[in-house]
Amino acid sequence: MASDVDSSLESEIRDLTQRARLAGRRVANLDSATKNSLLLQLAEVLNSSQTSAELMAANAQDLEAARQKGVSTAMLDRLALDARRIGAIVDGLQEVAALPDPVGIVLRSWKRPNGLKVGKKTIPLGVIGIIYEARPNVTIDAFSLCFKAGNSTVLKGGSEASHSNRSLVRTIHQVLAPPGMEEACQLLDSSDRQAMAALLRQEENVDLIIPRGGEGLIRFVAENSRIPVIKHYKGVCHVYVDEDADPSMALSIAENAKISRPATCNAMETLLVHEGIADTFLPVFSERMQKAGVEMRGGEKTRKILPGAAPASQEDYHTEYLDLVLNIRVVSSLQEAIEHIEEYGSSHTEAIVTNNDFTAQEFLDRVDSSVVLANASTRFSDGGQLGLGAEIGISTTKLHAYGPMGLDSLVTEKFVIHGEGQIRE
Amino acid sequence: MASDVDSSLESEIRDLTQRARLAGRRVANLDSATKNSLLLQLAEVLNSSQTSAELMAANAQDLEAARQKGVSTAMLDRLALDARRIGAIVDGLQEVAALPDPVGIVLRSWKRPNGLKVGKKTIPLGVIGIIYEARPNVTIDAFSLCFKAGNSTVLKGGSEASHSNRSLVRTIHQVLAPPGMEEACQLLDSSDRQAMAALLRQEENVDLIIPRGGEGLIRFVAENSRIPVIKHYKGVCHVYVDEDADPSMALSIAENAKISRPATCNAMETLLVHEGIADTFLPVFSERMQKAGVEMRGGEKTRKILPGAAPASQEDYHTEYLDLVLNIRVVSSLQEAIEHIEEYGSSHTEAIVTNNDFTAQEFLDRVDSSVVLANASTRFSDGGQLGLGAEIGISTTKLHAYGPMGLDSLVTEKFVIHGEGQIRE
Repeated sequence: MASDVDSSLESEIRDLTQRARLAGRRVANLDSATKNSLLLQLAEVLNSSQTSAELMAANAQDLEAARQKGVSTAMLDRLALDARRIGAIVDGLQEVAALPDPVGIVLRSWKRPNGLKVGKKTIPLGVIGIIYEARPNVTIDAFSLCFKAGNSTVLKGGSEASHSNRSLVRTIHQVLAPPGMEEACQLLDSSDRQAMAALLRQEENVDLIIPRGGEGLIRFVAENSRIPVIKHYKGVCHVYVDEDADPSMALSIAENAKISRPATCNAMETLLVHEGIADTFLPVFSERMQKAGVEMRGGEKTRKILPGAAPASQEDYHTEYLDLVLNIRVVSSLQEAIEHIEEYGSSHTEAIVTNNDFTAQEFLDRVDSSVVLANASTRFSDGGQLGLGAEIGISTTKLHAYGPMGLDSLVTEKFVIHGEGQIRE
Repeated sequence: MASDVDSSLESEIRDLTQRARLAGRRVANLDSATKNSLLLQLAEVLNSSQTSAELMAANAQDLEAARQKGVSTAMLDRLALDARRIGAIVDGLQEVAALPDPVGIVLRSWKRPNGLKVGKKTIPLGVIGIIYEARPNVTIDAFSLCFKAGNSTVLKGGSEASHSNRSLVRTIHQVLAPPGMEEACQLLDSSDRQAMAALLRQEENVDLIIPRGGEGLIRFVAENSRIPVIKHYKGVCHVYVDEDADPSMALSIAENAKISRPATCNAMETLLVHEGIADTFLPVFSERMQKAGVEMRGGEKTRKILPGAAPASQEDYHTEYLDLVLNIRVVSSLQEAIEHIEEYGSSHTEAIVTNNDFTAQEFLDRVDSSVVLANASTRFSDGGQLGLGAEIGISTTKLHAYGPMGLDSLVTEKFVIHGEGQIRE
């Protein structure tokens, strides 16, 4: 019996992804004006008092159930949709509509000696599966970016947001109905890890999986997927203050990287300081950190300068705190700083502060994280901040996309060739 | 005991890939001149009479063992290394040395309103695992392309080529020894699928797996890998002869696509012909095919025109024959041709022959295979033919690379940012 249930689930999910694939071919052929107009219609409908009210009612059901289950305050906050959040979703849709269409662009073209004209042209990926936690705003964000890039979307949100997601997807379907493209947005509304695992096996129909959430969810997806996955596990970001740094610039960048929003993946978790500047820099920096309530942990050299700092363990250097905790390590050279990053970093984002252009260049060349900065805060590692428009996620694995991903990461390139009857010898 | 053996194999392979990763950091920082000089040295050593003789002796051992195992003539042919084949390997190395270095190129750069200068710069992927069958020439081809792009390589060749591969990798190590980079080329010399499976779990150290070989090998790799895989299962390539085709051009392209080298993945497996031209085109074409010894299979409409053709089954339309067999289908419209390709194609390569620019454009736009051609043979779907230089493989999945892959597919891009003290509000 159990295997009957499994195979019926498998076949249900196969059908769902196949419908997404077939609809995807039609989305791929929509022109920019049509896609933008549908996105703006969706914004308008979501903004209408009737739809907003329905959505908030659905969300209230989710919130009530979540409270009864006793979920954390942080999770309740992520789950909640109030007028301001709905407004932000509407703004997001308008921004996506205003972005340039990434599809159909000939990125490069050349002519072969035999006269063949070869071009590489962007096309949609096809079907993108988004697996996320109980954050209903992701439902619209992810759908809109995938749709703008000509893709179908299979959404698998956290079960705690089930009523909210159903309400949102109903609204998407209402807008997609006139062109007959409802199937381009599929909601996999199941709380079941079996369902997620079945989705991850649909490599015939799904081209890419983007998981968004905690490390546990992402590891489950990465270990169970036959479909390519773009992911980042964590952001253990570093700022290295070189001996040639401008002290006040270093202070401002390190402070910004740690405390402007400590719960984000681009916040600094470890400060590396050259020993030539540590004695003067660290006491002033530490005072600022104490004022901001940051707990500091350090190695032996650090604790000689900052006796109040707790000892840092090996594990601490690997940890993404996402909180007001900071590791500090004094290093004797750029080399040692780079080796620390290679050993403990997560390939996310690292910054150097220095007035020495050669040192800056060596750091930027040798650190192979997805984002490397000289004399700027790690907090700029973000699609919007870097000018990519809205961000669908961030990749710390190197295939296809590395770093913050905008619309450009939701397309691929095919070879398009114009001939005049050429054959191969 | 069995699990002890497994975990010791696992840890051995983890160590091997970790050594590759550490060496990879040093290869990544080599300048182009050094990389090219090492590749040319390798060519010279392989070309020397002593090394050639050693290599042929090792290959003779493999051939003898393979003959005793009774492997197929085709496999013996692929396994054999004679002076001509070694010459081709040497030529290949010189070609790779002459190609432009794909590393360290700033592909795009822009300035943000806050003054941050953002660039996207190519960097090596890191460690690339190549899994292939008993074709010793792939050992040097794959190593040289990965190395030129600044990567380490883990080679897992077919066990039948074990002596040949060990001899080749010894030569590579001999050349890499002076700069101390032997570890950048690792040979996983085991006939064991357990060893391959263990390699496919080393996602901490290996960035990309490229399997080259038959569909069975590729499916095993795709289903067991936690590392991103770039692959193509098969090439079921189509030529569509439109009603507005020049008949003699259509004849020449379809003939070339089928018979110039039927065993390659870019050979045509199914010919689609518009009904408006089928009556006049097919009889002439069929005569040419018969002369070349091609067995033809077709649907009802085809067999009305070509009564000698066998009936084609659904399975035939899905089949990559790699042989002198051809499906022929008469269609009533471009739409029907595109639907046939969507249903039976393998996303590899499809061509249209037509003098109607609008029809050509619609075909090129709507068919989302990795290579689409108007008025040229499918046989041009090849890295060398398209001007990419040597080819590391071909991808029919859309992530990272789609179609023939040259050196450009062995790098990724990181964000490099120059600031002047910017912090995020």
